[in-house]
Amino acid sequence: VAGPFLGSPRQLNRRHESDAELLRLPSSEAVLAVTTDAIVEEIAAGLYQQPWLIGWMGVTVNASDLAAVGAEPLGVLMSVTLPADASGDLLEGLRAGIGAAALAYGLPLLGGDTNRGPVLALGGTALGLVRDGRPLTRCGARPGDCLMVSGPVGLGAAHAFERMIRRSTGAVDFRPVARLREGPRLRGLATACMDTSDGLIATLDELARRNGCGFRVTAPIERVLHPEARRTALEAGLPPWLMLAGPHGEFELVFTVPPEHVAALRDATVTDGWVPQELGRVTAEPGVVRLGADPVDTGAIRNLFDEVDGNVDAYLRALMAMA
Amino acid sequence: VAGPFLGSPRQLNRRHESDAELLRLPSSEAVLAVTTDAIVEEIAAGLYQQPWLIGWMGVTVNASDLAAVGAEPLGVLMSVTLPADASGDLLEGLRAGIGAAALAYGLPLLGGDTNRGPVLALGGTALGLVRDGRPLTRCGARPGDCLMVSGPVGLGAAHAFERMIRRSTGAVDFRPVARLREGPRLRGLATACMDTSDGLIATLDELARRNGCGFRVTAPIERVLHPEARRTALEAGLPPWLMLAGPHGEFELVFTVPPEHVAALRDATVTDGWVPQELGRVTAEPGVVRLGADPVDTGAIRNLFDEVDGNVDAYLRALMAMA
Repeated sequence: VAGPFLGSPRQLNRRHESDAELLRLPSSEAVLAVTTDAIVEEIAAGLYQQPWLIGWMGVTVNASDLAAVGAEPLGVLMSVTLPADASGDLLEGLRAGIGAAALAYGLPLLGGDTNRGPVLALGGTALGLVRDGRPLTRCGARPGDCLMVSGPVGLGAAHAFERMIRRSTGAVDFRPVARLREGPRLRGLATACMDTSDGLIATLDELARRNGCGFRVTAPIERVLHPEARRTALEAGLPPWLMLAGPHGEFELVFTVPPEHVAALRDATVTDGWVPQELGRVTAEPGVVRLGADPVDTGAIRNLFDEVDGNVDAYLRALMAMA
Repeated sequence: VAGPFLGSPRQLNRRHESDAELLRLPSSEAVLAVTTDAIVEEIAAGLYQQPWLIGWMGVTVNASDLAAVGAEPLGVLMSVTLPADASGDLLEGLRAGIGAAALAYGLPLLGGDTNRGPVLALGGTALGLVRDGRPLTRCGARPGDCLMVSGPVGLGAAHAFERMIRRSTGAVDFRPVARLREGPRLRGLATACMDTSDGLIATLDELARRNGCGFRVTAPIERVLHPEARRTALEAGLPPWLMLAGPHGEFELVFTVPPEHVAALRDATVTDGWVPQELGRVTAEPGVVRLGADPVDTGAIRNLFDEVDGNVDAYLRALMAMA
């Protein structure tokens, strides 16, 4: 619900300045992170079909927003809308997926709400805490900062391509993991952070706008692509960068790190057995995102899916025309 | 989503022991209250038709859960699902209703999520704080305690009767207010508390089960009924207690107070210009709720609506047969 916000003096972020809302708690230096996200269109479009995956995703989309602000998990509440003909298998699958994600993320299931409706929908609200009161936001990147990503990207696009264009199932093993363990490690080191839930290109577009900066991605696309995305692009004869165009992404974290903090970041992450990848640099060109030397019209790509009214074939044609 | 909870060691309540989930915050004596509630069936059934009322109710159902645990408001997040043909008027009305409620309750709108779906649905998550770490729950009532209610009840049933049985509109002025200002006043005085969102009889049934006690309502029904409910019952030739049978209630608080705290409660509430009404007493008869001298089968009444599969005519006939 857009419109004028009746803001809280406790809220640290304005709209879209961070992946989760940030609220200063009274008599404490801690900041509460809270986010609410529902999966409705994804289920309707057939992107997620197995009940287990739907449950897993309902938790994961919210967990990822906590990760991107560097919060430690407090818990999650789930709100499910069930159709009248919901089977026992559907319920069991949802529960199992929600439970597996809650366990994986150390995000206890605090409560929820069940409703009846015409179609299945799953919403969640995740709560986290930033004890030192210094959360990560989308704002703070500076020219010269190193641009990094928490892991390989493009899995979400590969999955969507398989499901929506090829209409095949099971070809891509899609079970993305939110970086809730890794996010808090970035506090004090990263200057800006955002997840890739809308695809890498949309993420870079948003970060560039928020920070009045640009990005130059110097890493070869093939090297940052998830193996499933690389294979999907190869088999379909698509240029690899299409797997970064979204709008269905995964849950890696894109973040910027001042050069003087890169060594400390390596130290902080390697102990977790986690190696963030270098993507490139933050530049002083406002709003310009370059893949190699070539500028990419990230704004146009980001809005394309809405502009073709969600028609996947038209979307792919338009995207190919941009290539 | 029922099923085994993957609990948090920070959570103070078990399922259904309180209207909101209660979470102890680290390095603080404060307790965070959080609740998530969506209105889906109510919209589908035509109970709420004006966009403004839908927005107001989406916030109110969540604010009321905060009130019932005695929490002070921190903020609310809204999750709206819009049909493809949603008009500008619908959006404006929703925003206005949400905004009016946020302002009325001092519950800032922190953020939200918008989705596309086949039908309009509105979910919310409210956050509150209990600074002294001693929230109200549904548990703690003792025989001999005074049974009280924050205001007149039956408005929700009167509205539902007008809409669902008479199929008329506008006859009942339905714009219920959550007791978020009053709830925190009850901390340290009330032993148990719950809102009447499912109707007074369902509330008493739940409190009796939770506390292994009974209730004897000695106040004349006519005196505790909302004027609109009294009028509706009179005009329709229904026994007044039917307006307490729900399952669509309002947002008054039912609570129990030890006799030695009643005077302090009167002092604490009168300064707000608020006079809670005495309903009766907590008794030692486990699970027995009496209206006057007569026991009422509250469990049967509470389950009746589900048993007739939500058929409102069958519901009313079955309820009349119980009278």
